[in-house]
Amino acid sequence: MPRSTLLPEDWITAATAVLIDRGIDAVRVDLLARELAVTRGSFYWHFKDREDLLQAVLNGWRDAATEQVIHRFEGRQAEPRTLIAELISLPFRGRAAERAARIELAIRAWARRDALARAAVDEVDARRIAYIAQCFSALGFAIAEARSRAFLLYAYEVAESLLARQGTAAQKKERSALLQRLVLARLD
Amino acid sequence: MPRSTLLPEDWITAATAVLIDRGIDAVRVDLLARELAVTRGSFYWHFKDREDLLQAVLNGWRDAATEQVIHRFEGRQAEPRTLIAELISLPFRGRAAERAARIELAIRAWARRDALARAAVDEVDARRIAYIAQCFSALGFAIAEARSRAFLLYAYEVAESLLARQGTAAQKKERSALLQRLVLARLD
Repeated sequence: MPRSTLLPEDWITAATAVLIDRGIDAVRVDLLARELAVTRGSFYWHFKDREDLLQAVLNGWRDAATEQVIHRFEGRQAEPRTLIAELISLPFRGRAAERAARIELAIRAWARRDALARAAVDEVDARRIAYIAQCFSALGFAIAEARSRAFLLYAYEVAESLLARQGTAAQKKERSALLQRLVLARLD
Repeated sequence: MPRSTLLPEDWITAATAVLIDRGIDAVRVDLLARELAVTRGSFYWHFKDREDLLQAVLNGWRDAATEQVIHRFEGRQAEPRTLIAELISLPFRGRAAERAARIELAIRAWARRDALARAAVDEVDARRIAYIAQCFSALGFAIAEARSRAFLLYAYEVAESLLARQGTAAQKKERSALLQRLVLARLD
């Protein structure tokens, strides 16, 4: 059998697209092979089995999601306040943000019923919250309070993508502006 | 054929359980009939087809989710501050809250790929946010600001159930206490 000219990434991309459109149960080797117009056998040049492919999908997402954050936070010398403003505006960054949100919601839906996906989501959530907490620490908030503020900011981001149909564009702007003032507000 | 002794509610309960455990694609009349140990035909005493059952599942959830809110907000003369504190503590109300969260996350996952479920979720989100906004209005916040604060409180609630694995019980308490202070804080 001739070696397939597809790369592992092609299978991962195809699997991710099916995951988004039809859910995890539809991500099956036979269906993907048909969609990619290759033999089912060629799949096994790249992956041991379906689970191996699913793990690759999760690793790809986790690395991209984490790298993004690291790049944003460590790659340059921005002020914590600027970083926080940027984080809050993340859900509104056009088509790239929309696509990222669709992948993420699909993986969260999958994680509801799968330990592998659950572990990846938990790790990504924990790392993002930890980075955001560092920002608040840099602004002088105490450790525990920085962590709480980071959770609230992150909760807003996650919910903004889940509740994207609530409110007009102007209302979304208002609530993101209010959140920014509140998470930075000193109480007492 | 003898009329089934099952009630429509039995089918709805069984369908909801399968939805939570195995996702919407597994909610099929033949599988439910087998699980309930009745004939497939008896299903049609109660429902026109699968979609009819799914609509009943959504209606049941929507009514319960809305009624809950109405009861909480209109059924008694509690202070807006008390109501807000109660809302913030909702995710931590033990097993009933856990079960409600599991149903809701399952329906949100389903809504990602289905217009019927999407409409039900959007309606529930909108009604809850509107009620919470009324609370903030009652506390003297201007219309637009009340709506933004309501969204932020609701975003926290939704995210707290989605991110339930992040943080210890003590940390969850800290962040819910902080949220309560922040959403009630007057800025400037």
